[in-house]
Amino acid sequence: MVTEDFKAVEYTDGCLKLIDQRQLPAKLEYVMCRTSEEVATAIRSMIVRGAPAIGGAAGYGVYLALKESGRNADLFHKLCLSLRSARPTAVNLMWAVDRVMKAAEDSGFNAETVLVEARKIEAEDIAMNHQLSEIGVSVLRHGDTILTHCNAGALATCGWGTAIGVIKEAHCRGMDIKVFADETRPLLQGSRLTAWELQRFGVSVTLIPDSAAATLIRDGRIDAVILGADRIAANGDTANKLGTFMLSVIAKAYGVPFYSVAPTSTIDFNTASGEFIPIEERAADEVRKIAGISIAPEDIKVYNPAFDVTPHENITGIITEKGIIYPPFDLNIERIRKGEKL
Amino acid sequence: MVTEDFKAVEYTDGCLKLIDQRQLPAKLEYVMCRTSEEVATAIRSMIVRGAPAIGGAAGYGVYLALKESGRNADLFHKLCLSLRSARPTAVNLMWAVDRVMKAAEDSGFNAETVLVEARKIEAEDIAMNHQLSEIGVSVLRHGDTILTHCNAGALATCGWGTAIGVIKEAHCRGMDIKVFADETRPLLQGSRLTAWELQRFGVSVTLIPDSAAATLIRDGRIDAVILGADRIAANGDTANKLGTFMLSVIAKAYGVPFYSVAPTSTIDFNTASGEFIPIEERAADEVRKIAGISIAPEDIKVYNPAFDVTPHENITGIITEKGIIYPPFDLNIERIRKGEKL
Repeated sequence: MVTEDFKAVEYTDGCLKLIDQRQLPAKLEYVMCRTSEEVATAIRSMIVRGAPAIGGAAGYGVYLALKESGRNADLFHKLCLSLRSARPTAVNLMWAVDRVMKAAEDSGFNAETVLVEARKIEAEDIAMNHQLSEIGVSVLRHGDTILTHCNAGALATCGWGTAIGVIKEAHCRGMDIKVFADETRPLLQGSRLTAWELQRFGVSVTLIPDSAAATLIRDGRIDAVILGADRIAANGDTANKLGTFMLSVIAKAYGVPFYSVAPTSTIDFNTASGEFIPIEERAADEVRKIAGISIAPEDIKVYNPAFDVTPHENITGIITEKGIIYPPFDLNIERIRKGEKL
Repeated sequence: MVTEDFKAVEYTDGCLKLIDQRQLPAKLEYVMCRTSEEVATAIRSMIVRGAPAIGGAAGYGVYLALKESGRNADLFHKLCLSLRSARPTAVNLMWAVDRVMKAAEDSGFNAETVLVEARKIEAEDIAMNHQLSEIGVSVLRHGDTILTHCNAGALATCGWGTAIGVIKEAHCRGMDIKVFADETRPLLQGSRLTAWELQRFGVSVTLIPDSAAATLIRDGRIDAVILGADRIAANGDTANKLGTFMLSVIAKAYGVPFYSVAPTSTIDFNTASGEFIPIEERAADEVRKIAGISIAPEDIKVYNPAFDVTPHENITGIITEKGIIYPPFDLNIERIRKGEKL
């Protein structure tokens, strides 16, 4: 199995080792988290980002919380709640915290059991990413040019990646795939992470300002839009990085297929539709400044939502490790909930 | 008449004084151009930008070319050609150079006549901007929230502005207009120029990443999209700053009116449709770096078109000093060419 030569999320030597993704591509540096609060801070400050990577990190955060709280259940719950609320939109965070907390409670707070559960989340995520990549590659043809947004790669997951995983799988099969990567303002995950990750993997990648995508789609230069998801509602509406919704409207208008790629841990069966997904608003200075340098009047008002919601009717298919979910999304997502085959 | 307390383009003391727009909003500094080649360089390097401001600057550039070339017609033509080709998309540049060259030739290369013609372009531009602002304000209602892109303000013209002129006119009439300004990657004319200009004028302005516009439009938070134009083809297709086309698709999809605002000097009667408008591609480092700081792998491929083309069917109306051009655009633009009333 092909792997990356870096890991965004790794538990080793009694602490959680995270790539400091804010430093890429200039520096590949790591941050060591020794407490659950350090993990929560790493999630909030986007040292680690990407829904599945956040889930993987949070699993280890629960383990650290258990170690810190000893047999104090109140403290354990308080620390877990802080982790769980570090960011509001990606559901993998809540899903992972709840899962590892349950393992803690079911095992009578057995540390070893809890660490095993956190390691399982990590291993399952990597396995799911390879599975969904092998499934997802079926929607691509030799020579296709893909548009992607933000980073849904090895850096956004516990390994390999979702949308970028599909692209890398196609690349490994010699399918001559080319990629246009949106820079993804304001935090430039496209420029800093996707461009770096795809270039390192040997995939042909061209960086564009987010606004250039529309012309490429209209002019027939994009064969498919493939990107990640932070939360998928029960009807197929999908929250993902700001800019995704815009791409979905343009892709639909010009008949270009639009695929969301995510493990089924990203589906929130309890959220009926996109309007109920909480959208995180982030700090104004993310837009006012770049690398500490002012690029706007210092006190200018800013609206900076981190995500937007793509309505299911703009989505061609949702690529998961259990298969590709096609419309009608509500019925097919219900099948997944029931454990039925797609 | 309300005016700004700055001028993007001013001919004074024998040289062309331009605001160095690359330094805003941090510094309000000026560059003095004493030769036509300095004017061409200022246009290329975007010290001065915005189709009507480029036209105004180029008019004085022709005057400087005449002074430099004395009675050497070959040299004069060579210098004018260099000015004329400084940037390829905005037609006001070619229009202004041709107009002042004709004044030179018609007057037997009389310097005073040529300077008067350049001054006329500047004065007419300011007058047209006020006229089209008074006309354009009719499409707005009290309390409207406007989305704008790039900068089509006093900084983009010889004074007052086009799209921003309409907004300022409404503001001066007490219409309680609010503005969302796209930051406009890669060169951030929205963050650096529009936010600065509107805030200085007292208009309520909120800065957003370009990708946030789509959600605002869908959610009914935008009453109209109003922005400038760099070249309008004979059928109404319009080239404007990269990102305009994307906004036009979203606005159309969600039934929000979309207005281009420009003086009729922006119409290119000789270009049949948008597909014939040359689109300038700019340097990769505009996307790879911000304020000199690398934000992407240093050798990453980049596609960086400065403009895109909005098809006329996405445009509600084109606001000019001669009235608002509505569909059928081809017939109504032909009326303007013939000097008929709209």
